[in-house]
Amino acid sequence: MEKRTELYRGKAKTVYTTDDPERLILHFRNDTSAFDGEKVEQLDRKGMINNKFNNFIMDKLEAAGVATQIDKVLSDTETLVKRLDMIPVECVVRNYAAGSLVRRLGVEEGQELSPATFELFLKNDALHDPMINETHAVAFGWATAEQLAQMKSLTFKVNDVLKQLFDDAGMLLVDFKLEFGVAADGSIVLGDEFSPDGCRLWDKETRKKLDKDRFRQGLGGVVEAYEEVANRLGVAL
Amino acid sequence: MEKRTELYRGKAKTVYTTDDPERLILHFRNDTSAFDGEKVEQLDRKGMINNKFNNFIMDKLEAAGVATQIDKVLSDTETLVKRLDMIPVECVVRNYAAGSLVRRLGVEEGQELSPATFELFLKNDALHDPMINETHAVAFGWATAEQLAQMKSLTFKVNDVLKQLFDDAGMLLVDFKLEFGVAADGSIVLGDEFSPDGCRLWDKETRKKLDKDRFRQGLGGVVEAYEEVANRLGVAL
Repeated sequence: MEKRTELYRGKAKTVYTTDDPERLILHFRNDTSAFDGEKVEQLDRKGMINNKFNNFIMDKLEAAGVATQIDKVLSDTETLVKRLDMIPVECVVRNYAAGSLVRRLGVEEGQELSPATFELFLKNDALHDPMINETHAVAFGWATAEQLAQMKSLTFKVNDVLKQLFDDAGMLLVDFKLEFGVAADGSIVLGDEFSPDGCRLWDKETRKKLDKDRFRQGLGGVVEAYEEVANRLGVAL
Repeated sequence: MEKRTELYRGKAKTVYTTDDPERLILHFRNDTSAFDGEKVEQLDRKGMINNKFNNFIMDKLEAAGVATQIDKVLSDTETLVKRLDMIPVECVVRNYAAGSLVRRLGVEEGQELSPATFELFLKNDALHDPMINETHAVAFGWATAEQLAQMKSLTFKVNDVLKQLFDDAGMLLVDFKLEFGVAADGSIVLGDEFSPDGCRLWDKETRKKLDKDRFRQGLGGVVEAYEEVANRLGVAL
């Protein structure tokens, strides 16, 4: 399967059409961005690591009964996926307080959240991805109540699976973001990616940050941290 | 019943203790504030109008089966109320897009919202009353899931009653904010106030603003608008 035209260029991935109208190619680039694209750098090997990491995680999720967009890996940085009609609402689960939650609500970083929180954000760079809730999504037609209920349930299922997976490898899954789309048959399918670009992972003992916060906060060793996470999980790089 | 000590001084009301530990006095002041207290003015007669307006509305809500904090009117600007353990979460229903929703989500002012949206905000001036959701309130102990469900259900009941009331008087209830508290018996009771300080009201035909947006936006005729709303509803001033 070959790339035809560029359909969408995101901050870290480019999406291409293929000869099959129901299949797209995700190309994971080395671009690393933060603060709505204000800080951007090329980090060598990052596209390859995130592509392989994402495929590893999506495999685990498929095995646990979560439908994902993945069809098959094409190369180190490219994956063939099912075409979805993406829902412009990001789902975030937080197991520990960090990032925007700490700034917004004045709570302490690292506080365990019990139960885990669930948030929706509108995918809109110009508006800085504002937090929304289910009633906004329904009133403005971004998703139906039924789709939102499924997205919430699937996001918590992903949390159950991945919290255990990372825990077994000595890491805390602090928080993560998922994006869903609607497949041709109307079902809700997990799309986009799961990688250290879109989640927070801390070492369980030292709480060392092993995710994109190393880039956001200028801590250095970004790709090295992503590789460490992959190695601990047994992802073949 | 006499005021004893000042318990809490809000931006427009002062709360006093009384000889009865289960009763408080709300004193409606003429202070009018906006933008987290950055803009403050004294508007003659406003305290009196809001006190009488609030009692009129709370009477209607009691009659419709919504338990409120009101005991009895003491004077033009003072009302005796039941003491509640206030929940620090504001409930907002919007029937039309206006205010922070328009800025936050980039939608058009005046757009009818169908279904009406429901939002929660943490009552915290230092954090500028950030939007939260049910999972934050539960995780941080601001309210239980059961209390939140009751608050939501009561807020929509209030919307049903008041939308009709204002419609009958030629006005659109654009949005409003409610605060609830827990009574001695553990039940959820409507507290704080309902007045043009905490809701948006537009003339149905001209969409002239008849609420605190006149103050926020420097449109003038603030108290005159509040009086017009009261007169249209038949509140005796």
